[in-house]
Amino acid sequence: MALLTDELYMREALKQARLAFQRDEVPIGAVIVSEGLIIAKAHNQVEQLCDVTAHAEMLAITAASNYLGSKYLHGCTLYVTLEPCPMCAGALRWAQIDRIVYATDDPKGGFMRFGKTMLHPTTEISFGLCQEESQTLLKHFFQSKRL
Amino acid sequence: MALLTDELYMREALKQARLAFQRDEVPIGAVIVSEGLIIAKAHNQVEQLCDVTAHAEMLAITAASNYLGSKYLHGCTLYVTLEPCPMCAGALRWAQIDRIVYATDDPKGGFMRFGKTMLHPTTEISFGLCQEESQTLLKHFFQSKRL
Repeated sequence: MALLTDELYMREALKQARLAFQRDEVPIGAVIVSEGLIIAKAHNQVEQLCDVTAHAEMLAITAASNYLGSKYLHGCTLYVTLEPCPMCAGALRWAQIDRIVYATDDPKGGFMRFGKTMLHPTTEISFGLCQEESQTLLKHFFQSKRL
Repeated sequence: MALLTDELYMREALKQARLAFQRDEVPIGAVIVSEGLIIAKAHNQVEQLCDVTAHAEMLAITAASNYLGSKYLHGCTLYVTLEPCPMCAGALRWAQIDRIVYATDDPKGGFMRFGKTMLHPTTEISFGLCQEESQTLLKHFFQSKRL
């Protein structure tokens, strides 16, 4: 049951990633869930906002804090379609988020090349859910850029 | 001459840090300079905005990109009163900033515990300018919190 629920939320993150694709952004989407409720949805907006800090995760963190009225995201889970970069991992550490679920890893750009200590010691991570969908979307995006 | 100019800009960053102190925020300030001109000033606003992403550096990066109309901060220098954290270092990497000057290091919270590879390979760093002023300000802030 937990897995089915995780998949449901990851599918919402994938919807956000597809929105990014439609807007000619690197297709990455994120949602943040608290007590079963999606409290933030965001997609990568780096090009639209002309701002390197406008990753899906960063926008979702800001929106979730605004919703909760708390800078800490205790009790929250982030679902994101790609392994967060070090910037986003650093933000997630500050937010002390409970759990991070990402669809596909990013050996070149992801935070894990610096190790799990980038995150808060209490943050749990898992990945691999909807991996193929996320990879396919990213592959199509970068292929379209090379045409 | 270069050092005098660096000091001038760092003193502006310290003014921002003092503004943060007055507003009961951890006193950290930053300015970004392009072609000798200060194009962004910011201070830590995490408590005011209730948002862990609202570090001085992050706000300055967003403001500088807005000013330049570019997500890349080529030709820019960031002056910041404390060694950036991994989140901010990650953002500075994405922005491909030319140079980072920080007043005092942060062995526990700074990005350097993960190494200089957190930054873009072309980014230069230096530190130690106005170190004592920055340290004194931070010390006073944390002492006032323990009273």
